[in-house]
Amino acid sequence: MNDTASGITRSPDSARPTVDARIYPKGGLDVLSRDEVARLKDASSGGMHDLLRRCALAVLTSGSASDDPRAAQELYPDFDIQVLQQDRGVRIDLVHAPAMAFVDGVIIRGVAELLFAVVRDLAYTAIELGPEYADELESSSGITNAVFGLLRNARILKPAEPNLVVCWGGHSIGRNEYEYTKDVGYELGLRGLDICTGCGPGAMKGPMKGATIAHAKQRKRRKRYIGITEPGIIAAESPNPIVNHLVIMPDIEKRLEAFVRIGHGIVVFPGGVGTAEEILYLLGILLREENARLPFPLVFTGPTAAAPYFEQIDRFLRLTLGEAATSRYDIIIDDPAKVARRMTAGIRQVREYRIAHKDSFYFNWALKIPLEFQQPFAPTHEAMAALALHRGRASHALAADLRRAFSGIVAGNVKEDGMRHIEAHGPFQIRGDNDMMQAMDALLRAFVEQRRMKISGEYRPCYQVTS
Amino acid sequence: MNDTASGITRSPDSARPTVDARIYPKGGLDVLSRDEVARLKDASSGGMHDLLRRCALAVLTSGSASDDPRAAQELYPDFDIQVLQQDRGVRIDLVHAPAMAFVDGVIIRGVAELLFAVVRDLAYTAIELGPEYADELESSSGITNAVFGLLRNARILKPAEPNLVVCWGGHSIGRNEYEYTKDVGYELGLRGLDICTGCGPGAMKGPMKGATIAHAKQRKRRKRYIGITEPGIIAAESPNPIVNHLVIMPDIEKRLEAFVRIGHGIVVFPGGVGTAEEILYLLGILLREENARLPFPLVFTGPTAAAPYFEQIDRFLRLTLGEAATSRYDIIIDDPAKVARRMTAGIRQVREYRIAHKDSFYFNWALKIPLEFQQPFAPTHEAMAALALHRGRASHALAADLRRAFSGIVAGNVKEDGMRHIEAHGPFQIRGDNDMMQAMDALLRAFVEQRRMKISGEYRPCYQVTS
Amino acid sequence: MNDTASGITRSPDSARPTVDARIYPKGGLDVLSRDEVARLKDASSGGMHDLLRRCALAVLTSGSASDDPRAAQELYPDFDIQVLQQDRGVRIDLVHAPAMAFVDGVIIRGVAELLFAVVRDLAYTAIELGPEYADELESSSGITNAVFGLLRNARILKPAEPNLVVCWGGHSIGRNEYEYTKDVGYELGLRGLDICTGCGPGAMKGPMKGATIAHAKQRKRRKRYIGITEPGIIAAESPNPIVNHLVIMPDIEKRLEAFVRIGHGIVVFPGGVGTAEEILYLLGILLREENARLPFPLVFTGPTAAAPYFEQIDRFLRLTLGEAATSRYDIIIDDPAKVARRMTAGIRQVREYRIAHKDSFYFNWALKIPLEFQQPFAPTHEAMAALALHRGRASHALAADLRRAFSGIVAGNVKEDGMRHIEAHGPFQIRGDNDMMQAMDALLRAFVEQRRMKISGEYRPCYQVTS
Amino acid sequence: MNDTASGITRSPDSARPTVDARIYPKGGLDVLSRDEVARLKDASSGGMHDLLRRCALAVLTSGSASDDPRAAQELYPDFDIQVLQQDRGVRIDLVHAPAMAFVDGVIIRGVAELLFAVVRDLAYTAIELGPEYADELESSSGITNAVFGLLRNARILKPAEPNLVVCWGGHSIGRNEYEYTKDVGYELGLRGLDICTGCGPGAMKGPMKGATIAHAKQRKRRKRYIGITEPGIIAAESPNPIVNHLVIMPDIEKRLEAFVRIGHGIVVFPGGVGTAEEILYLLGILLREENARLPFPLVFTGPTAAAPYFEQIDRFLRLTLGEAATSRYDIIIDDPAKVARRMTAGIRQVREYRIAHKDSFYFNWALKIPLEFQQPFAPTHEAMAALALHRGRASHALAADLRRAFSGIVAGNVKEDGMRHIEAHGPFQIRGDNDMMQAMDALLRAFVEQRRMKISGEYRPCYQVTS
Repeated sequence: MNDTASGITRSPDSARPTVDARIYPKGGLDVLSRDEVARLKDASSGGMHDLLRRCALAVLTSGSASDDPRAAQELYPDFDIQVLQQDRGVRIDLVHAPAMAFVDGVIIRGVAELLFAVVRDLAYTAIELGPEYADELESSSGITNAVFGLLRNARILKPAEPNLVVCWGGHSIGRNEYEYTKDVGYELGLRGLDICTGCGPGAMKGPMKGATIAHAKQRKRRKRYIGITEPGIIAAESPNPIVNHLVIMPDIEKRLEAFVRIGHGIVVFPGGVGTAEEILYLLGILLREENARLPFPLVFTGPTAAAPYFEQIDRFLRLTLGEAATSRYDIIIDDPAKVARRMTAGIRQVREYRIAHKDSFYFNWALKIPLEFQQPFAPTHEAMAALALHRGRASHALAADLRRAFSGIVAGNVKEDGMRHIEAHGPFQIRGDNDMMQAMDALLRAFVEQRRMKISGEYRPCYQVTS
Repeated sequence: MNDTASGITRSPDSARPTVDARIYPKGGLDVLSRDEVARLKDASSGGMHDLLRRCALAVLTSGSASDDPRAAQELYPDFDIQVLQQDRGVRIDLVHAPAMAFVDGVIIRGVAELLFAVVRDLAYTAIELGPEYADELESSSGITNAVFGLLRNARILKPAEPNLVVCWGGHSIGRNEYEYTKDVGYELGLRGLDICTGCGPGAMKGPMKGATIAHAKQRKRRKRYIGITEPGIIAAESPNPIVNHLVIMPDIEKRLEAFVRIGHGIVVFPGGVGTAEEILYLLGILLREENARLPFPLVFTGPTAAAPYFEQIDRFLRLTLGEAATSRYDIIIDDPAKVARRMTAGIRQVREYRIAHKDSFYFNWALKIPLEFQQPFAPTHEAMAALALHRGRASHALAADLRRAFSGIVAGNVKEDGMRHIEAHGPFQIRGDNDMMQAMDALLRAFVEQRRMKISGEYRPCYQVTS
Repeated sequence: MNDTASGITRSPDSARPTVDARIYPKGGLDVLSRDEVARLKDASSGGMHDLLRRCALAVLTSGSASDDPRAAQELYPDFDIQVLQQDRGVRIDLVHAPAMAFVDGVIIRGVAELLFAVVRDLAYTAIELGPEYADELESSSGITNAVFGLLRNARILKPAEPNLVVCWGGHSIGRNEYEYTKDVGYELGLRGLDICTGCGPGAMKGPMKGATIAHAKQRKRRKRYIGITEPGIIAAESPNPIVNHLVIMPDIEKRLEAFVRIGHGIVVFPGGVGTAEEILYLLGILLREENARLPFPLVFTGPTAAAPYFEQIDRFLRLTLGEAATSRYDIIIDDPAKVARRMTAGIRQVREYRIAHKDSFYFNWALKIPLEFQQPFAPTHEAMAALALHRGRASHALAADLRRAFSGIVAGNVKEDGMRHIEAHGPFQIRGDNDMMQAMDALLRAFVEQRRMKISGEYRPCYQVTS
Repeated sequence: MNDTASGITRSPDSARPTVDARIYPKGGLDVLSRDEVARLKDASSGGMHDLLRRCALAVLTSGSASDDPRAAQELYPDFDIQVLQQDRGVRIDLVHAPAMAFVDGVIIRGVAELLFAVVRDLAYTAIELGPEYADELESSSGITNAVFGLLRNARILKPAEPNLVVCWGGHSIGRNEYEYTKDVGYELGLRGLDICTGCGPGAMKGPMKGATIAHAKQRKRRKRYIGITEPGIIAAESPNPIVNHLVIMPDIEKRLEAFVRIGHGIVVFPGGVGTAEEILYLLGILLREENARLPFPLVFTGPTAAAPYFEQIDRFLRLTLGEAATSRYDIIIDDPAKVARRMTAGIRQVREYRIAHKDSFYFNWALKIPLEFQQPFAPTHEAMAALALHRGRASHALAADLRRAFSGIVAGNVKEDGMRHIEAHGPFQIRGDNDMMQAMDALLRAFVEQRRMKISGEYRPCYQVTS
């Protein structure tokens, strides 16, 4: 699979033990033309290099507990990565890499695979979605094609029976809720279902862990634990070690599209603003007339203690998106087996629908995603202030702006860029109708109180809600 | 692999939900002659039936928490199992089986495999080691051949590189110690080592769990989590769900021999009398002159809080077996990676020794086990009182009797038969030299205080030590 | 799989180039107990040694053209084989072995596998069917169990869909007939059917060759080319190189039983006395009342030029076994695809019958074979003279004796022992009713004229027919 | 893998039995975007349709004996193929397809795979190498990249040990020569080597057939029988049925480049003008200074009767390319094992060279191919007349023109277009130095006399040589 060359040196002045290594990738990176290797090398040493370095570091510290994207940088200040053309393909050189990714000087195979995924996806993005293709990324179908291309290149798309459950939920959740996500994952796994998450800690790890045990008990051979991330979030939500397929989408919107195109059903656990963003994204799409008849199993679930949480979410959705929204989801409290049975039944319907409508099992082509949900949103202070959270607007336009509002707060909370913006210019200003702003403020305050915003440290709001 | 027939009925009067099912086995039970199926059916309906029923119930409640062998019987009083000759081989009928072994009416595949293992091994024992072969089981080599035959029939013996670490330790250990066993299993697993234990909870589960995560990270394909049990202990130490190879040896002595014949190294975690029995068994053998040059990596390990525990064990071994005993083991406190590296290095030596001495990798033929360690010991009150724990005896004879003493206490604590004996006739009387008896008493008291004797409930000693 | 040690020396005085080699077997011979290895070594060096040597030589000259069992012996007079206990199992030493089995000093893998099969089966016979089990081999069910045991030990019996066609026919056939057997094998192979033959040349090789091409075209993964032979015949009918499963049954009667127990249908091509023996064996069994309702597809087939051959066989069967016999077979001339479709349809019926009667797919337990067809027949001059080929006898008794008559002639033609008998005492005398003897004589004369008796050289009859 | 829908209708008015079928491809065609399916459908129904139809017909009559490209067209005049977008991907509809590709109405799996290869490669060429990429195909590296892309897309390029022998030689050769090519293939196969040919009959089929037997004997798992063809030649040289990887390169020059980029060594059997073209192509490249140190095992071989043939070739090469040419090839007569050993040794050198020079094993990047050997040559009467076969020219320019001369004659002999040209305008005129023209004429006459030009029918020369 991969080899790590011997020369292991320890960086004396680094905060943590480190290792130097040479790694020879396989799988997707192994049959490249000379031109492709050269372009990969160029891309990784040019503008992409810092991005590559940060993502690689996230992967090499996979499983660590902090959600501060700057922590790893500070612990491993001398870490560097080079992609070189050598021997019969690509060679990856690591300098002062975290020793935790190695066993007796040899890189852990699963970590190496995640590392190849990082190189593979950043290179694909740089080469296939570079500036010269900007035009193609202006249209809805162009963006969907880009998402398809990236996922296929990552070997995520395979002809197989529909069985992929996407699990959304917070990276910072309590022990009780975490155990519950494991229980749900276990029940999903017992029924042969595979798991896809945002691949960070908390509700993104629990379901995979539970499914791993269940898959082992059911002697499942081909087990998929898919993690979908993006450069801004990977450092804050370091891929958990169970992930065996990692994809790095270029931005948050393509990451969201990837979830809903490949998932056959979605389970939402308690979470913070990120989870709220995901819910608004999905409901904003499902509520559109053209998707009305498309089956898409969606369950909100948590332990008994989480019941009030989902009541509040439910109220907020009714208030903002209208009563119709509630027809698209079930709330199931404290019953993991029921969640799994509901998913199994829902996915059966998805299967029949796809056959009847000649859609593929591995990519939900039939789902219409409007361009306003696909275009990247850059959460500057101006853009956040320009959001128009008013009742009068078309509901999908409102949903799109609500999604953007939560997306901006996620950035202000845990993304390196966003955090810098907030430090420089103070909290974002979010404006809208009075009742909606009050509901939003209440929801956000609850997230803060329930410690859903950050794993560690005191939370200082990065937003102000004004009606 | 296996199928469960539909007809699922729920026993209305049973304490717990149950399921009826028909299961068609595969793997070892799938190509039988008509005679063999008939003998299997006969065996399972005759004297073996109660044994089969108890072992099957233990497997079907795999993962449950109690160590009281009578608990499962009481929860599932109507459970029954029949082995039938039908279609093209064997059919197993389950009546009022624990619903926890099923998902939506279909048996969990891993549980079904454990069930086949039970039928396979009990049938092998009944047919191949029956009364007509009693003579062959009188000699040391005859017993070793029986152990070999059972293990081969269970498909445990395969030509492969030496990598099997046997982990011994208590079924009733604290959270802190349990986490430590997981950490050690993780470090062993990262180095590609497989795990074999007595397959109950506690220190028998932790290392497998840790190794499972590590094996997943290292993308290990062929993972072996071997559980070796015996009919008396299986009900009290229900196989944990990770076990993917289960063997039921006919008695405790053949179980111990199986451990030391197939393991390439042994790690001992804190435990109670069972663990003490295992340590005395192994050291009693290794200290014999004819095994002196045989490499056999042996490490006692636990978290920092367990240091005093191992100091006490160490003192007891020096006192009873002499200073020489200490040359055969290392004590490593709170350093899982060091344990794993020691095992890796030790197993490398084992490999070289086997090649040099033309011994097989999968069965340690070269280890000489004296007949006194192989003959079954029935812990009656008479037999226990007859043990002669005196300094004057040959050290291997003394070690053998010490092993028997602890074995008897295990029976009195958790085995159904033993518990009945104690209830009827009061505690065992154990006699010996004053200092040895005092050391033994202190050790046993410590086990009681540290709650190592039983998982739940108040412990009432089943022994009295008299000098 | 297997390795050949380096030391390649060429025997200067041998007629042909030879090689010395050490081979380490795998598959069935790889997990043996010390006792078993010792017994294997003993068996192979004692009375079994000459047998082992002859069979091994047949395998090592696999694919050569002669059917004279003494030819190979004379070409490789210094060849020897030793089974040794070494390293971690068995080692096979070859001295002055035919160079044609090696490529640049390394044994051809498939040839090595056939060699292991020889050692495996002769050892099984020596150990499991030795003199101490003579009693068990007195009864019909005892013999059937022995056949089952040998086949299972050879890993021939596997749960799988019924698809095994046994092909019978002569080892000495014309080019035209040989091409036809290939065409039939090709059509069988296109339909996913596997092939089993007596594994010599001619009609035993052609169907395998045709099926190999068809299986490759159909991208069949698990392809079985089973050869069933016995010590007396293997030297005269050296296994053809396509065989990937070889079994050596202890005698001709167990070989015949193996064919009809594992085959799901049988195709008979033109042949000589051996083929006649096989036809009489099968019809003698199928015509018994207790097998009357058992489906067993049986097709006699050949190219147009072979039509007269089958007419003569058909007349002989009507005369000796009665008109009823004809209901059990179809004669299909010059239509390979029709043969394959008939087999496919017939095997479908076999499948349904087995399911309905709960018989296994891999062993035809339901077929009743009378003891007189199972007991070994030693074709001495006395035994041959004692055959009573009279019309008055029960038809199955007559069929059994007719089978024995042909069996004796096969021995006189190509088996080493039989040939020696004939050389010493002149031709066998066969007696019976006038018309039957005339028909038999005509049949045998036709075989001689058509050169079906021997591959090369002039044929001198080893029998005289007297009415 | 693939399924054939039921509806089997027979074309009543067609010359041969035909079948209608729907086929669902897999492998490379199974994960396509909607755009890609649409483009595939467009491409296959537009200008590419006739090409697709002809290539598909060649594949569906795989194994048939004629080399007249128009024969199949005439036998199956109503045959048609459609590529449709349906269900979850691509569907291929066949109308009036040759029944010989089907068994009881179901397409032979291997034939289906070749059919998918046709669709895959024609689509790749149409989409990825279409007119809009014309610029890229102007440069040497651009053409090499196109060859790489096509081969990678066909999944021919895999990281593996070097073991691929390209076999060149005539499609129309005698029985004796054909048997010899089988023997060489057998010896290559025994040594674990894979085979690549032009995938027609004769010397392109024999080596694969021999290797198939040898690979079966050696129990080789991953066996590659690669056929490389081009649209002009596929109809005349229908892929033989052993081919399990088929690639259709867009033109003869890219086909030649594919051979020398992926082959690790080349064996040349007797052949006609096509073989002469291949020899001149390879030597023209290898004799260039920049390839002087590149190891490239090249053996000319045939049975004893072929010795004069190679003497004549040898003389022609010395005359035209100079004595230096002879250092690049060995002539081995009647010794298949020696050929195989020479290849094995030569490939070992190739392996070492690639490692030393960091070149890939699966693609010979280091070989410099001048643009004049890469640019497509259209053999019109004008182009043929313009060839300048004069001694004074640079030797590589002369070699390139000689290659073109033979290429033109191949086209005039067996390619549909070429044959039409000749019918319309009479034979090509080839001009050059007197001695060279005489040598060429002698060579061509010998090809005619030895019946190497066409499989059947009288040969009428399509050329006139003038000095």
